[in-house]
Amino acid sequence: MDALELALLFDYYGGMLTDKQRDCFDMRYNQDLSLGEIGEIMGVSRQAVNDNLTRTEALLRRMEENIGCVKRDMLTRRAVQEILDAATVLDASSDPAVFATAQRIRAAAHLLEE
Amino acid sequence: MDALELALLFDYYGGMLTDKQRDCFDMRYNQDLSLGEIGEIMGVSRQAVNDNLTRTEALLRRMEENIGCVKRDMLTRRAVQEILDAATVLDASSDPAVFATAQRIRAAAHLLEE
Repeated sequence: MDALELALLFDYYGGMLTDKQRDCFDMRYNQDLSLGEIGEIMGVSRQAVNDNLTRTEALLRRMEENIGCVKRDMLTRRAVQEILDAATVLDASSDPAVFATAQRIRAAAHLLEE
Repeated sequence: MDALELALLFDYYGGMLTDKQRDCFDMRYNQDLSLGEIGEIMGVSRQAVNDNLTRTEALLRRMEENIGCVKRDMLTRRAVQEILDAATVLDASSDPAVFATAQRIRAAAHLLEE
């Protein structure tokens, strides 16, 4: 699985993993340790680490298929960008009420980026 | 748990339940059957139905605590409403470019409501 995709899935759904799954995932993808190194730290075989990671990835994918946070996040980003672009057009207006409204729209759009 | 809250949790996270959990939840909260009636249909005791529903509600709550779709959904609705209200202010402008931009902002905001 693509590293960025995995990182996004972990951001949204990591809270649903067990401590062991989270630790293992973190050592593999954030600390970039090998399966053997993780196995030594956890006191299990290289194969057990691999199985753990495979199960975690499958669970993260299943959550995305059923809940869809990452997909929704991408649609939101696109819509927010479109709203911000449109607000920029309004900044060129000489009408102070229009300028103030552009600010208001931008503020609300930024709330969606959090 | 409040019925509306439960319905929202089910909308977002229902896909992560087992078929049995989903059926049981549906009979109880959508079809409004009693625990006894559900037990008869499923061939289990009233108590087993109650346990099943209690576990389902706990799982739905745990997913919301860890993933937060319902909370995020409410923040999005509020921001979208603010953007739509601001776009209405722009409709009063005599400048056709401003009017067109208001339409553009509304279209993007509506994408966020889906």
